[in-house]
Amino acid sequence: MREAYHDRLGQLADQLADMCGMAGDAMERATASLLGADLALAEQVIGDDAKIDDVRADIEEQSYALLALQAPVATDLRIVLAVIHAAESVERMGDLALHVAKAARRRHPNQVVPDTVRPYFAEMGRIAVELAREATDIIRTQDVKRARSLEDADDAMDDLHRHLFTVIMDKDWAHGVPSAVDTTLLGRFYERFADHAVSVAKRTVFVVTGRMPGYHGDTGDDA
Amino acid sequence: MREAYHDRLGQLADQLADMCGMAGDAMERATASLLGADLALAEQVIGDDAKIDDVRADIEEQSYALLALQAPVATDLRIVLAVIHAAESVERMGDLALHVAKAARRRHPNQVVPDTVRPYFAEMGRIAVELAREATDIIRTQDVKRARSLEDADDAMDDLHRHLFTVIMDKDWAHGVPSAVDTTLLGRFYERFADHAVSVAKRTVFVVTGRMPGYHGDTGDDA
Repeated sequence: MREAYHDRLGQLADQLADMCGMAGDAMERATASLLGADLALAEQVIGDDAKIDDVRADIEEQSYALLALQAPVATDLRIVLAVIHAAESVERMGDLALHVAKAARRRHPNQVVPDTVRPYFAEMGRIAVELAREATDIIRTQDVKRARSLEDADDAMDDLHRHLFTVIMDKDWAHGVPSAVDTTLLGRFYERFADHAVSVAKRTVFVVTGRMPGYHGDTGDDA
Repeated sequence: MREAYHDRLGQLADQLADMCGMAGDAMERATASLLGADLALAEQVIGDDAKIDDVRADIEEQSYALLALQAPVATDLRIVLAVIHAAESVERMGDLALHVAKAARRRHPNQVVPDTVRPYFAEMGRIAVELAREATDIIRTQDVKRARSLEDADDAMDDLHRHLFTVIMDKDWAHGVPSAVDTTLLGRFYERFADHAVSVAKRTVFVVTGRMPGYHGDTGDDA
């Protein structure tokens, strides 16, 4: 009985890892659609988002069933609750990738972000995808030591995000208000994506070690 | 034993309602600090946010204890999980009020939003607080019929938010880029606050009726 229970818990973690991988792929494509003004790719991300939402609904349903039928305690209970929380965060990661793709679609065939800040988005996109992949691996391997490297990547994201703001706010910004507005919101989407990825990894660490790492990378910007 | 359990569940719901009321108060003060360039009020919101976070931590801890010790099933299980989710949403509402207050503090003694868009923020603030109060009452009274009125208020918020964007993006916007950036982010904070309040109310409806209302007011913007 407990054996079967642990099998189901393992499957649930696998599903969460798959979902996190899907969110990473979505952000990778969304960033490519943004930087390449690629409408087909943007449409693909937009169309695929429902799949991520479906996995989340399935994970939640199975978690509830496990809680109701098996009434786990201690670590087993903590795992199920962490999975429920993490699935919610990963769904938001998917939504944020969706927002990026929608911005690319809205401005097509024009570029959304001006040339000056393209390198920022290339780098923020790279870090966002890296964070999603790392979180995926941490869920799969339960290798909590790797969670520490996420902090560095998240700090790098926060630095880029802050610096991006100084560029937009600078009096030399020559790209007008609409472009500044788009750039502002996009910057926030990447930064939030990173926060959620870190939070997913931290939930995993909590499950494995019983201790929640400090929310150091989470700069109070968790909205 | 079940009697004691239901008492604890009732206390948990009361605590959640109190927390939701605190988030509504925070947004009311944050909006007043924004529109009045009132630094003392902004500081109060910023200082008080930790209290909301503390209530959330306490609610989560008690929910976990209930799950572990009592292993509830069916409706009782659904209530505890809804409380855990709702507490997370309300904490985010508090964070969003905090962001508004921080914007007021950052630009003090200047106004953050230009006169043209002040009426939008006065109205978005009013609706945000109304939504938080309604959600609080729905948690307390379990009166799910009231949840429908939330949809209208949330639609009104979405309309204001959309219209605000057309104002910022208009070629006649005469307030420069930094002001457009601040206005953009603030608009998003109010709109997200409303989404979270609606989601808290919907979780309550789900617990009472067993059916999750459609996410009609949730315009895919749930990041």
